[in-house]
Amino acid sequence: MKEQNAQPGWKMKLHEIIYEADTPMGRLFDIALFFLIILSVILVMLESVKDIDQNYHKTLLTLEWGVTIFFSLEYIARVISIKKPWKYIFSFYGIIDFISTIPLYISYILAGSQVLLAVRAFRLLRIFRILKLVKFIGEASQLQSALKASRTKIAVFIYVVLILSVILGTLMYLIEGDEAGFTSIPRSIYWTIVTLTTVGYGDIAPQTSLGQFMATVIMILGYGIIAVPTGIVTAEFSRSKKGRADDQNMVHVNTQACPSCSAEGHRDDATHCYNCGHSL
Amino acid sequence: MKEQNAQPGWKMKLHEIIYEADTPMGRLFDIALFFLIILSVILVMLESVKDIDQNYHKTLLTLEWGVTIFFSLEYIARVISIKKPWKYIFSFYGIIDFISTIPLYISYILAGSQVLLAVRAFRLLRIFRILKLVKFIGEASQLQSALKASRTKIAVFIYVVLILSVILGTLMYLIEGDEAGFTSIPRSIYWTIVTLTTVGYGDIAPQTSLGQFMATVIMILGYGIIAVPTGIVTAEFSRSKKGRADDQNMVHVNTQACPSCSAEGHRDDATHCYNCGHSL
Amino acid sequence: MKEQNAQPGWKMKLHEIIYEADTPMGRLFDIALFFLIILSVILVMLESVKDIDQNYHKTLLTLEWGVTIFFSLEYIARVISIKKPWKYIFSFYGIIDFISTIPLYISYILAGSQVLLAVRAFRLLRIFRILKLVKFIGEASQLQSALKASRTKIAVFIYVVLILSVILGTLMYLIEGDEAGFTSIPRSIYWTIVTLTTVGYGDIAPQTSLGQFMATVIMILGYGIIAVPTGIVTAEFSRSKKGRADDQNMVHVNTQACPSCSAEGHRDDATHCYNCGHSL
Amino acid sequence: MKEQNAQPGWKMKLHEIIYEADTPMGRLFDIALFFLIILSVILVMLESVKDIDQNYHKTLLTLEWGVTIFFSLEYIARVISIKKPWKYIFSFYGIIDFISTIPLYISYILAGSQVLLAVRAFRLLRIFRILKLVKFIGEASQLQSALKASRTKIAVFIYVVLILSVILGTLMYLIEGDEAGFTSIPRSIYWTIVTLTTVGYGDIAPQTSLGQFMATVIMILGYGIIAVPTGIVTAEFSRSKKGRADDQNMVHVNTQACPSCSAEGHRDDATHCYNCGHSL
Repeated sequence: MKEQNAQPGWKMKLHEIIYEADTPMGRLFDIALFFLIILSVILVMLESVKDIDQNYHKTLLTLEWGVTIFFSLEYIARVISIKKPWKYIFSFYGIIDFISTIPLYISYILAGSQVLLAVRAFRLLRIFRILKLVKFIGEASQLQSALKASRTKIAVFIYVVLILSVILGTLMYLIEGDEAGFTSIPRSIYWTIVTLTTVGYGDIAPQTSLGQFMATVIMILGYGIIAVPTGIVTAEFSRSKKGRADDQNMVHVNTQACPSCSAEGHRDDATHCYNCGHSL
Repeated sequence: MKEQNAQPGWKMKLHEIIYEADTPMGRLFDIALFFLIILSVILVMLESVKDIDQNYHKTLLTLEWGVTIFFSLEYIARVISIKKPWKYIFSFYGIIDFISTIPLYISYILAGSQVLLAVRAFRLLRIFRILKLVKFIGEASQLQSALKASRTKIAVFIYVVLILSVILGTLMYLIEGDEAGFTSIPRSIYWTIVTLTTVGYGDIAPQTSLGQFMATVIMILGYGIIAVPTGIVTAEFSRSKKGRADDQNMVHVNTQACPSCSAEGHRDDATHCYNCGHSL
Repeated sequence: MKEQNAQPGWKMKLHEIIYEADTPMGRLFDIALFFLIILSVILVMLESVKDIDQNYHKTLLTLEWGVTIFFSLEYIARVISIKKPWKYIFSFYGIIDFISTIPLYISYILAGSQVLLAVRAFRLLRIFRILKLVKFIGEASQLQSALKASRTKIAVFIYVVLILSVILGTLMYLIEGDEAGFTSIPRSIYWTIVTLTTVGYGDIAPQTSLGQFMATVIMILGYGIIAVPTGIVTAEFSRSKKGRADDQNMVHVNTQACPSCSAEGHRDDATHCYNCGHSL
Repeated sequence: MKEQNAQPGWKMKLHEIIYEADTPMGRLFDIALFFLIILSVILVMLESVKDIDQNYHKTLLTLEWGVTIFFSLEYIARVISIKKPWKYIFSFYGIIDFISTIPLYISYILAGSQVLLAVRAFRLLRIFRILKLVKFIGEASQLQSALKASRTKIAVFIYVVLILSVILGTLMYLIEGDEAGFTSIPRSIYWTIVTLTTVGYGDIAPQTSLGQFMATVIMILGYGIIAVPTGIVTAEFSRSKKGRADDQNMVHVNTQACPSCSAEGHRDDATHCYNCGHSL
């Protein structure tokens, strides 16, 4: 299924294992990576729980080092096994892989760099591909395209909501004043958005009759406003759904990745990368 | 409407009463069962209210025993009146019937087994069938099929929401710190989901300006995100609705159950079970 | 436009004024009634505010008597001006009119009968008709028919939500116990519904890690579940919308009411009641 | 692209800079205005934060004066550069521009006039035009027309929600009484709306079993009710979406404004104002 190319065999082999999931080795690697990513995210979480961190600090640190070393090796392997390393290094996943690997190293130089560990969560996105859930990718991209199509409308909507919040927040500040917690306009705007979106923490709540009346108006407004993004997205979905039903232009894709530019989503019968023309 | 088969008459009779609702006796049994299930669930609830349990402990226990004995007899009757008892015993309802019957017996051996009583709530699902609400079953299965069709999309959606929550929760943990209640990343993630889903308890709420700003972003995000499952399900409903309007392939079914495998939903004019071929 | 009938002229006249809004007098009566209904509802509200009630008790009582006397006269006029009084007396509006008139009278005999004043709010429904908002009635009935069509599906949905709440509430009771406020199963179920519907008061909130995890699951569930009624109603609306666009079978109706049976919604060119055949 | 008219050249020039965004100067002016509007809104916000206002009062006041003077000049320029100044002065934007300019002047005469500064938020609406986001305007007007089409239905819906709130609020007042915070009917109605809209502050929460049961009913009701506006708007969007796809009657518009009546949204190939016929 794959034509040999100018690259050495072991690089081809490595590329197949790391970037693809069609061979047993490739699948094994992906499953291992899957569990390591989950593990690495859980580690970050556990480290943040004081009780656990105090009692098991050593264990956690050891595991963290294990994960970091594996990720480092994986990162290096990804870089060397690909023909155009820069394409990977500056790709979305390349940057995430880098940032979620280095914090432990630089934590000895720079305190607080643990912050970067949060980036690891993005690696979870890989799981779709790892589980070879081509079907999932299809659905995801359908979701994505529906959201993309409604992008401008949603931007207009959010913009209007923000303006409304600024106006209503200022009004509530003038009505309620300091006692009820509306100590400044930004705080009032915060409360307005808490109310408009029907979150309603209750940390700030209107005390005066007029304030409660205004709050009521804002709530009913929010109740109606929530219909708008739903309407937008639903209309888009219904359309894309219809579109898809008629769509003769769909082919099945596999998890193969181009060894040159690492583009994904090639047709099952593809022999050349649709992106750079490199033979697969 | 029913051909006699190799089974003894009283078993057939019992089967008709317990599993079906087309005869007066069968309907009577179903209505009795209906009220007993409701009663049994209410009993579990009342036992959990300390005041009531202290004052009426004896009455409640007596009633509980009454219900348990009835359920036990019903369970035995169900097992012996069916040709292939194992099919019932290991069916969804068979397991629920069993688990919601035994707790009282084993409570004398094993304290805390009352936990299993919660399973009784599942018996409430029977009510659809009991009330001979074939129409309800039709609607329910329509709901079900619409949800099933959007399953993958909803899985993708929940997955994305979870990743978002992990990332945003970690960020909020870094921004707010301990004072505001964001004592650990898991707790921050809990707060993020409380906010994203617009539940907003207020037990944890951001105190810093930056934290409140981030909260605002999360809320508006959640406001937009809620549009997605709605869009998915609505598009599916609209489609299934259209489908149904054109659908010539629907027949009316009754509450008859196969005496051999207890499959339900036979056509009115069926003479053989669609599942095992046994004559009805 | 109206044929004289066996009824005395003054009764016809009264009927036209009270039940219809096509003559200047009829419209005047309706507008007066409109403001009196609003006033009567505001009166009930103000009486409930302690400060206001203490300071203005006399004024409020006087106004209340004024409203009550007007409503009494109106009720009597409605009964005598119609040919078949029982049709009105036992109609939805007839009962509401009666209940919202009597509380003040019986309050001298029976303390606490003020409770019935709440029924007055139902009189607000009259306003649609009073404002001669035939268009509003059209929209309202469209809303109504869409909701009616999705009735069974929504019943199934609510039933499933209730069962879910019972099961999840019992689980949370077992997980959280008394300290966090989950003192009994009914209270846990209350909390579960508060969470599932994304209301989230925060008066009860999980304290344990497991409880917060469960809460997270319930929230995401609730987030997804909210899509279902929306999907149902939207699909119904889209259909009814399409239906209406094609609908050649619509005529314009006016506010005339049959003098015999008080049926409403007659065609502009009607000469006989569509309900009882009485000439209009 | 523009025919000279009876107006002096500098007025034409000024008009082009202020009202349009097709020339480099016009775009520069709009971008400057854009940042000044944002700045002016941020200023109002910062002034409301006590800490910031105390420490930087002078700086803020200076900036406020700067913004006010620019806005004053802009207002004057807008009035003199247009042929029919009254059209601008009494237009929506004209009034907003005026109100958001004067507060600082009259604050020396009339304390508390800062309230009017809230109106500045409305100026943010200009940004759409400023950014020459004709596409945004298109989407916005599409949103607008969908909302306009569902106006009556939404009015009916809100009316029904209000009546429901009055009835349910009164009931809750009678059930819960003073202890739980339901001190008056208006306050109970406030709570009912907080619950119905799923905001749920938790500042007032039912304490009795019956009250909690009622609350549960209200929540589930609210859960269902939220489906209605969504259904309405979605159906409208789906329709308008379809409509737009077929729509041959759309032309591209630019940011040119009529020098006489300042109407906007002229076709690219327009030579005369569609509103007053003045040549562009």
